[in-house]
Amino acid sequence: MTELKKIDVARVTDKVLDHAQRYFRGEGFIEIKPVMLGRVTDPLDGDPGSAVLKTGTIEYGGQNLSLMQSMILHKQKLIAEGFDRIFILSPNIRLEQPQREKTGRHAFEFVQIDFEIAHAKKEDVFELVEGFLASVSKAVETDCAESLGTRGLKCIKAPFDRYHVKDLEAEFGPDWETIMSEENDQPFWALGLEREFYDDEKNNYDLILPEGYGEVLSGGQRVHETQKVLERMEAHGILETNREYVEFAKQGIVPSAGGGIGVDRLVRYFTGAEHVADVQLFPRIPGRSVEF
Amino acid sequence: MTELKKIDVARVTDKVLDHAQRYFRGEGFIEIKPVMLGRVTDPLDGDPGSAVLKTGTIEYGGQNLSLMQSMILHKQKLIAEGFDRIFILSPNIRLEQPQREKTGRHAFEFVQIDFEIAHAKKEDVFELVEGFLASVSKAVETDCAESLGTRGLKCIKAPFDRYHVKDLEAEFGPDWETIMSEENDQPFWALGLEREFYDDEKNNYDLILPEGYGEVLSGGQRVHETQKVLERMEAHGILETNREYVEFAKQGIVPSAGGGIGVDRLVRYFTGAEHVADVQLFPRIPGRSVEF
Repeated sequence: MTELKKIDVARVTDKVLDHAQRYFRGEGFIEIKPVMLGRVTDPLDGDPGSAVLKTGTIEYGGQNLSLMQSMILHKQKLIAEGFDRIFILSPNIRLEQPQREKTGRHAFEFVQIDFEIAHAKKEDVFELVEGFLASVSKAVETDCAESLGTRGLKCIKAPFDRYHVKDLEAEFGPDWETIMSEENDQPFWALGLEREFYDDEKNNYDLILPEGYGEVLSGGQRVHETQKVLERMEAHGILETNREYVEFAKQGIVPSAGGGIGVDRLVRYFTGAEHVADVQLFPRIPGRSVEF
Repeated sequence: MTELKKIDVARVTDKVLDHAQRYFRGEGFIEIKPVMLGRVTDPLDGDPGSAVLKTGTIEYGGQNLSLMQSMILHKQKLIAEGFDRIFILSPNIRLEQPQREKTGRHAFEFVQIDFEIAHAKKEDVFELVEGFLASVSKAVETDCAESLGTRGLKCIKAPFDRYHVKDLEAEFGPDWETIMSEENDQPFWALGLEREFYDDEKNNYDLILPEGYGEVLSGGQRVHETQKVLERMEAHGILETNREYVEFAKQGIVPSAGGGIGVDRLVRYFTGAEHVADVQLFPRIPGRSVEF
């Protein structure tokens, strides 16, 4: 394929953002402004191999504040305060180990379309996300034909296949994600991964893009029973470092489900870019220097 | 007035974001994703009294990275790369001195609608922003009537009056902004403030909201002559700390004009909130503790 120009990347990104804003509003969501600094943030305690080196923190006003790794805990707080359907174009900072450069899909700063639905089940999320992906791919293909060039984007067709991770591991081994992503020409759901303390282990999901582009969404029904939350936090060794969340959990968590869709990963898939660096106007890639 | 509920604040904020996205796209802009960490950021070298205590920084991959104080330098880089009209819903972090709590309109984390136009003059920005404010206030009044309650929002009428700051200072003294904001019932432009190195001192502008709500936008035509940029940076003592920008400036800056509109400040005005803290779902106010 011809080399991707920045303006083409920007046009496809703009279309994805525009479509997301319209689609989620059309589905009854309201847009919440992102939060970048918090007393708590997603501990990423379920990330296999602890690929995040450290949480970025700053000191201000006598407090240590964490750079947002994801807004999951803040989304849960809003849901508990009575919000019903929310989405956020949420910049996240995850200071990953430098070897993650090689995956082609990890950036240490990225934006996700982060959403949460009160009292929802995983099936509600499947339907919402499948509708989004089918419609955004159509919008990109129609409105960004010139920017896509010779990409030859395949039409995304809902519903997507669903697999249990334990079945995929049994068949393909630990590299199931890479193998399955390369073999498929449609996105598929991978269910039941071992994950962060807040995700119900029986009802969580990843969405994997086809053609080798890999994971684009993680999410789940959230653990809402206070006792179970505290037990899991203790087992993961993160009880002491998340006191504000513990206090919140003791006051009662409202059940919800949600997830986050990586904008750059989606744009990489749409444009057929080699590396996620090629779709960031200011690349923020583990193991590479920041230039500006 | 009755106490503002979080859901009402969120609905008005959602309407402002929705309207901004549609309005700027309708005017030929494309939306760029925010950048949160940079080798350079807005030095805020023109802020009177140096109200920002320090730039937030983190160390990662052997580099010091600054938390984004505004994307002005990154906007200029994109304009130089050929982008024509861009906007960003840009979270900014400015670690202000605690006494800024008292102004009622300073948060140490906020989102601005940040925009830039290649080869534009200040009059282009006036027309664009006046059109935005007139239409967004109408949209909020029409679609968020229930959330506004008894606010009694005045209809915003373009064009806005324009004043030179030196005339305002001569008439009202150093508190001209407060006095003029309280006395007026329409927004007005204040021209020719002493400002950051990148703003042409003869062609910059602030937009001041009426009814005492104060400044909601800062912007200007940008200094684009390399020699002048370097002289101003040297005079402000920021040449050594912004080497990447100096290198960029030496390669040639493309003239542009732009600005940033504070979302929370606009929502505060629309809702009639006492303090900007009352319109942030997670308040981030200098001098106050972060709770979550």
